[in-house]
Amino acid sequence: MEQLPALADKIRETLIETLSETGGHLGPNLGVVELTLALHRVFDTPKDKFVFDVAHQGYVHKMLTGRWDQIHTIRQYEGLNGFLLRSESEHDSYGAGHAGTALSAALGMASARDLRGTDENVICVAGDAAFTCGPVFEALNNVAAHTRRLIIVLNDNEWSIDRNVGAIAKYFNTITTHQGFAGLHQKAAQFVEFVLGKEARRLAGKVEESAKNFLLPQSGVASNRSVMFDEFGVRYYGPIDGHDVRLLTQTFEFLKTQDEPVILHIITEKGRGYKPALADPGKFHGLGKYNIETGETSATRTPTYSQVFARSVTDFAKDDEKIVAITAAMPGGTGLSVFKKELPQRYFDVGIAEEHAALFACGLATQGLRPFLAIYSTFMQRAYDMIIHDMAIQKLPVRLCMDRGGLSGDDGPTHHGLFDIAYLRPVPGLVHMQPKDEDEFVDMLWTMANYDEGPIAIRYPRGVGPGVTPKDQPRLLEIGQAELVAEGEDVALLGLGDLFPMAEEVKRRLEAEDGLSVSLINPRWIKPLDETLILEQARRVKVVCTFEDHVLTNGFGCGVMELLAEHRVTTPVVRIGWPDAFVEHGTIPILREKNGLTAEAALQKIREVLAPRG
Amino acid sequence: MEQLPALADKIRETLIETLSETGGHLGPNLGVVELTLALHRVFDTPKDKFVFDVAHQGYVHKMLTGRWDQIHTIRQYEGLNGFLLRSESEHDSYGAGHAGTALSAALGMASARDLRGTDENVICVAGDAAFTCGPVFEALNNVAAHTRRLIIVLNDNEWSIDRNVGAIAKYFNTITTHQGFAGLHQKAAQFVEFVLGKEARRLAGKVEESAKNFLLPQSGVASNRSVMFDEFGVRYYGPIDGHDVRLLTQTFEFLKTQDEPVILHIITEKGRGYKPALADPGKFHGLGKYNIETGETSATRTPTYSQVFARSVTDFAKDDEKIVAITAAMPGGTGLSVFKKELPQRYFDVGIAEEHAALFACGLATQGLRPFLAIYSTFMQRAYDMIIHDMAIQKLPVRLCMDRGGLSGDDGPTHHGLFDIAYLRPVPGLVHMQPKDEDEFVDMLWTMANYDEGPIAIRYPRGVGPGVTPKDQPRLLEIGQAELVAEGEDVALLGLGDLFPMAEEVKRRLEAEDGLSVSLINPRWIKPLDETLILEQARRVKVVCTFEDHVLTNGFGCGVMELLAEHRVTTPVVRIGWPDAFVEHGTIPILREKNGLTAEAALQKIREVLAPRG
Repeated sequence: MEQLPALADKIRETLIETLSETGGHLGPNLGVVELTLALHRVFDTPKDKFVFDVAHQGYVHKMLTGRWDQIHTIRQYEGLNGFLLRSESEHDSYGAGHAGTALSAALGMASARDLRGTDENVICVAGDAAFTCGPVFEALNNVAAHTRRLIIVLNDNEWSIDRNVGAIAKYFNTITTHQGFAGLHQKAAQFVEFVLGKEARRLAGKVEESAKNFLLPQSGVASNRSVMFDEFGVRYYGPIDGHDVRLLTQTFEFLKTQDEPVILHIITEKGRGYKPALADPGKFHGLGKYNIETGETSATRTPTYSQVFARSVTDFAKDDEKIVAITAAMPGGTGLSVFKKELPQRYFDVGIAEEHAALFACGLATQGLRPFLAIYSTFMQRAYDMIIHDMAIQKLPVRLCMDRGGLSGDDGPTHHGLFDIAYLRPVPGLVHMQPKDEDEFVDMLWTMANYDEGPIAIRYPRGVGPGVTPKDQPRLLEIGQAELVAEGEDVALLGLGDLFPMAEEVKRRLEAEDGLSVSLINPRWIKPLDETLILEQARRVKVVCTFEDHVLTNGFGCGVMELLAEHRVTTPVVRIGWPDAFVEHGTIPILREKNGLTAEAALQKIREVLAPRG
Repeated sequence: MEQLPALADKIRETLIETLSETGGHLGPNLGVVELTLALHRVFDTPKDKFVFDVAHQGYVHKMLTGRWDQIHTIRQYEGLNGFLLRSESEHDSYGAGHAGTALSAALGMASARDLRGTDENVICVAGDAAFTCGPVFEALNNVAAHTRRLIIVLNDNEWSIDRNVGAIAKYFNTITTHQGFAGLHQKAAQFVEFVLGKEARRLAGKVEESAKNFLLPQSGVASNRSVMFDEFGVRYYGPIDGHDVRLLTQTFEFLKTQDEPVILHIITEKGRGYKPALADPGKFHGLGKYNIETGETSATRTPTYSQVFARSVTDFAKDDEKIVAITAAMPGGTGLSVFKKELPQRYFDVGIAEEHAALFACGLATQGLRPFLAIYSTFMQRAYDMIIHDMAIQKLPVRLCMDRGGLSGDDGPTHHGLFDIAYLRPVPGLVHMQPKDEDEFVDMLWTMANYDEGPIAIRYPRGVGPGVTPKDQPRLLEIGQAELVAEGEDVALLGLGDLFPMAEEVKRRLEAEDGLSVSLINPRWIKPLDETLILEQARRVKVVCTFEDHVLTNGFGCGVMELLAEHRVTTPVVRIGWPDAFVEHGTIPILREKNGLTAEAALQKIREVLAPRG
């Protein structure tokens, strides 16, 4: 116990140094050093189960469970994953990357234990932001009915990725700013140490009530503290200082003797122990390389797709008061902080609540507003039912803006946006598109802004594009009209979005190396397809090749094949895209190479169709 | 006002009589007669907006907004829809069929009104069961931040479709069973009438505080009543008698003057005014024709797929203590009430909480249990992110049992289960299947029970199948092995699941009328496909025809085409399935006929490929 503060320092030092080279979720991990130490001191993994919500705060846990020496490989190809992964360690009882899943999963583990009649502990660690997620409330509603032994740690740092919003955040804030709290953790520390020290186990029964009363004062406002959780049948304790490792340890020793579900509210600082991170928690939530001394990151000159998106929509909104913008707790990630700053009345951050975000957008759309709903492709999966049941059936013009459409790179499989074409293409009436560069992106956003017939979606990749500066005035695109960039006779290439440059390269090489005549199409529209152009080209050439930053199954190329089949065009279709497997983390070039998303692989497949071996 | 009780009687009479012929959601509508009358008395649609959650309780609203004379057409082809539909009436401000969407949508409408600066009222009507849904809490978390004027009616009848579960239901129950409630609504009625009668508007400002104090007593338990909603920044009123139309009217007159979001808790009886419905609220939630005098429905002898499912899984579970069953508030609909009765310890009803249900199943699966998750195909859309992010990435063996896979018939577009193949097929490693009859269904369930490699899904249609009695002992099926029923040379027919009989008919007619030799395949597996068999057959015949009770886009036939293309097999594929459009409500035969899901349509398409015109 005496050595723990020094160990905490060493962990922080290692994290700050290592992540300055690798990038990663620095802030959240600096915030949970003492918590993770205390958990591992009191509990015994893998027998006991820790379920970390979102799991980007699992670096310390990794370091304490045999992966200290590998922490420098984090988020790198074949290195440690940036989240927890069951396949990475037996100490990772549950993986995650999306928020709000831990409580339900932990409850499942606790229920399984109860059925089995064994005695291991299940501890769910969730941030305050998780309590803006619907599934967490669905789980809370079931906790008391389904187990008598579950420890929930509410790690309250007032931030999700950006600052939290809504009534729950306010509620937590009321608790923690209550006048009694200032000195509370000090007193609690002394008290718990006194009654729960060496004699804890022997005395547990007797001191239980007084400990409860202490941690949960009965007077005035303080007695309200627990009411919300009490209604859910979960006993509330706290708040206590989440950086006092001794207090945490002793509290967990106490909580593990309880025979009712409990929630321990701890207060932590995101970025604890590193000044630049404390000064800018949003930036240091997750980032690339940085200068250790200053915290500076190397900024690129080229605006990212997110920045182009936010700038454009904000500008459009200045001239069109029907435009509103919605984010699910990601003003920074989506770029919408600029909209927030310039048009705060029409900006809505709803918390990590994609389902509500989509429904709220539907409600706005029924009143003639033009909502832009900015949610990463992978998180849009949360709103799938609403896209079908609310938007599409009712033809409500919600604009789905899906950043990180395509491989997300170092975040790995929980964050790749590789399924949106597959799940949106079957939705009747939904329009879906992807731009080949930033200029076309702005045209598409402008087209969306002016499209009121029903739901309309756009996917665009993480980071920067080819760097094409948008025109001064965007132009309206014709829905379902592709761009025929070059016309040829032998091969037709359809390069969707960020794979358009790959199609260009294939064209050059087919012409130069094979002497072929090649059509090059920028499809623009995933749905509706430009049927006329694609059929015409497919009928004329010997092979069609599609390129997409998406899984092949039910993807863009699959749509092209359906079209051809429907019209009995038998020209073979070669498809370049991601395989039917989860793609690991790593740099985009490495992963593309490994999975056959290269010009070389496309050339080989095309050549094989044109001149089959044997 | 004096005539309203008589009108209420007349509405009930009409509903009881009409629905005895048409079927429909009798119980919920009998419960909201007075509520709907009071809403329409106080508010003015379409200017004011009513948002009914789930919207199966909208019949009374339809009758009061120009559709009384059509109510006998409800749920019938080209008649009134069984839910609200924006396209049906300007008084239907929001459509629904799935639960938990109304509060978010209403908040969107209220926010739009606030931006616009107009003064219409937005009223959200949600049952107590909706408060087991995550999106409702996501919305609650945002209400206070996003509007100052919103009326939420909590229509508390203690039932969703089956009796509610969890902490929230208990919480509402605590409120309503509080000793003070018994006589409360009487007193409230007198009080409200007194202070809010003719003079209401003039006095509103003055009486506000005393009315609040009355409706929300400050003493003892009663002051806790509002705490949960208060934390969310929503002022709580109630509970009051939801069948006292005068009290409701006066309360709404008062609430519409409030400048803060309010929730009015009303207590209603599901099935009010009809003895058989009061005696069996579960049955009368939604049903087919019944005898008015006795409430009896005509039972079929053949067990439904739901019954076969529940009987089988319960029997398996008796011999395998790892098997557990999970439902999201549908023990009756899924058939799992039999599992509940026979193995209550391993039965989990989590409320209308599909996301939690899926995550909870994942937690159970990490501990070696074998969860069967029974959720209708259309509701499984709610758990899509969990299927990818939690089940599939982690290869957790959760068994997805999707009843109502295929057209749901008279419920209409919100309930058809037409997208599950499209959204599940791209999920790496997920196994998906559909049986051709009840016997094969049991074999498949047995195969699922014994499959521990990862997530595995099955879809099966609503109602009864061909009536094939299952064998005494189920057999294990080989994953990915189709059944070659007959082998021919000209045409290969792949009849998936409930469309297998249609494929059989096409085979008979192609042989009899065209003298062709026909292969007939029962595919069984949607993923993985039986690649060997399908490729072999496709290479041998002149045309392949697939049949599926699913949209064509990204469906089963699309998978067959992908397979053929991947192997450069150019045999044309004709696909029979639902078009890329939302299918309305009606009987299954009518809708199949209208949309080309018939043997005749298949024959025509096949013949056209074999002998093209012109």
